[in-house]
Amino acid sequence: MHILITGAAGMIGRKITEQLLKKGRVGDLEITKLTLHDIVASDAQPTENTSIRPIVGDLADRSVVDWLVSEKPDMIMHLAAIVSGEAEADFDKGYAVNFDGTRHLFDAIRLQHYQPRVVYASSIAVFGAPFPDVIPDDFHLTPLTSYGTQKAVGEFILNDYTRRGFFDGIGLRLPTICVRPGKPNKAASSFFSNIIREPLKGAEALLPVPESVRHWHASPRAAVGFFMHAAEMDLEAVGPRRCLTMPGVAATVGEQIEALRAIAGDKAASLIRHETDPVVAGIVSGWATEFEAKLARDLGFSADESFEAIVRAHIEDEHGGKAPIME
Amino acid sequence: MHILITGAAGMIGRKITEQLLKKGRVGDLEITKLTLHDIVASDAQPTENTSIRPIVGDLADRSVVDWLVSEKPDMIMHLAAIVSGEAEADFDKGYAVNFDGTRHLFDAIRLQHYQPRVVYASSIAVFGAPFPDVIPDDFHLTPLTSYGTQKAVGEFILNDYTRRGFFDGIGLRLPTICVRPGKPNKAASSFFSNIIREPLKGAEALLPVPESVRHWHASPRAAVGFFMHAAEMDLEAVGPRRCLTMPGVAATVGEQIEALRAIAGDKAASLIRHETDPVVAGIVSGWATEFEAKLARDLGFSADESFEAIVRAHIEDEHGGKAPIME
Repeated sequence: MHILITGAAGMIGRKITEQLLKKGRVGDLEITKLTLHDIVASDAQPTENTSIRPIVGDLADRSVVDWLVSEKPDMIMHLAAIVSGEAEADFDKGYAVNFDGTRHLFDAIRLQHYQPRVVYASSIAVFGAPFPDVIPDDFHLTPLTSYGTQKAVGEFILNDYTRRGFFDGIGLRLPTICVRPGKPNKAASSFFSNIIREPLKGAEALLPVPESVRHWHASPRAAVGFFMHAAEMDLEAVGPRRCLTMPGVAATVGEQIEALRAIAGDKAASLIRHETDPVVAGIVSGWATEFEAKLARDLGFSADESFEAIVRAHIEDEHGGKAPIME
Repeated sequence: MHILITGAAGMIGRKITEQLLKKGRVGDLEITKLTLHDIVASDAQPTENTSIRPIVGDLADRSVVDWLVSEKPDMIMHLAAIVSGEAEADFDKGYAVNFDGTRHLFDAIRLQHYQPRVVYASSIAVFGAPFPDVIPDDFHLTPLTSYGTQKAVGEFILNDYTRRGFFDGIGLRLPTICVRPGKPNKAASSFFSNIIREPLKGAEALLPVPESVRHWHASPRAAVGFFMHAAEMDLEAVGPRRCLTMPGVAATVGEQIEALRAIAGDKAASLIRHETDPVVAGIVSGWATEFEAKLARDLGFSADESFEAIVRAHIEDEHGGKAPIME
């Protein structure tokens, strides 16, 4: 089995790659090849059973897109995207990659005339306020950012291309991923990870929104689990509407800080500095707080158990079980 | 004031053109020029006050699109589209015009760096079954055809381009237009008009669905009224979600036939031949039956009073008040 991952050098892309190489199979099928695409080279290494075909290029370039699917990969995990903050700041770039790039990728698959599985990374940014307290699975898509608009468009064409039989698609609306390891990125949601990750390293973190802000989260580990499940599950069971809100954990920023405090102590929590940023606070005020995600749970997708579990997963995955501040 | 109409040679486009030339103004502003685009030449004639700039070309051709907006029209009415049946039969053509063409048009406007009003013809085909009996304004978009998908994508980018300040957009989800004059087109909904129009001419018409099918209609006259209102109204009042389901008349095919009978007699009604077409019946079974359309009504959009009024409007507009069968 040959799997293409777009955006393979991104945080989730790297973790999925690692997991696929480690497992070596999807269901009963051995993974013989990974085509790993990104705008920078992947540093993943081949294994005895799995070769790696790295492709460095811009998804906005149609010749790159054609090249990606030229060997007819059996499965395509489409993660490449310009993130929310950058898609808002650079209109052209966001539309070129997230809108046109996704359309071209789906079309390049269609024009190969085979029916691979396509797993598409969507986002809860397809939803925008006003919301009910708990958002049901059939809530209308009302994006309030260019990123959310572009992700919603990808969902619509994924459904249509699937209905037409060009590929067998599923879209995963990812919760805000927390705790993201590494450096802050340009997503407006970046602070959710910063306020956990930085204090655990003994560094200060800025909190640009009030503690009352409530939001929907999943750990990187849970996100990788969503993709692994989407790779193996029976897609017929999903029905014609192929894009699903993934399960997650709803927590206020205050509750998130308390989870940090419970695990890493007052010293960690005191490293969070409150400094409201009206721009970020404005964007975040239009975000969803909690989802029902019943369809996805019924189909076997599972989330972290609590926000404390999210913090513990981060410490296990990125600090070998014990963060510096806890020593 | 200079107005561009794409799809100006289509049925609604021609009627809007006629109305604009007749009125000669939008609100307080005199219409000095109409740019009339279609794939065939418009036969509209200039008036003393309004010149006509005809452009014949394919919306799928980006150079044509750039040309359309090169003179920065103050208002753009975007009606050009591949209709539902054809977009389903010819995948490439539908996406080239309805998806890429709309994206290019909106982008060409953006790159002119001015803020015209854009009135976009969307469709109730953005909705797909299962439905509640009366579909509320905040029902989620669930298209079941490529045409509906493409129209939904246009709605999303219209909202985003408006939010970003590139233009001031409004989208009108048109009910199925009935009675369409002239010849049947490739829309799957064509029979709704055929079963009224053809008998009124003394000709037989095929009914490919059961009489129990209930659907949402507006006359061409009402549709023109929607565009005229959208051209003049205060768009700030619409709010950030700029695409609205237009009001209409819900009627079963059986009720439609009875309206025809009440106006034109048994002879007309007897010209309808029942011959179920499973393909058409299948498509139509996924269509909406009735909408609340409260937002649009509150904003001053108004529909026909009844299905009989729709039939009478057709007889007035296309037969000078008396159809051949009634003589």
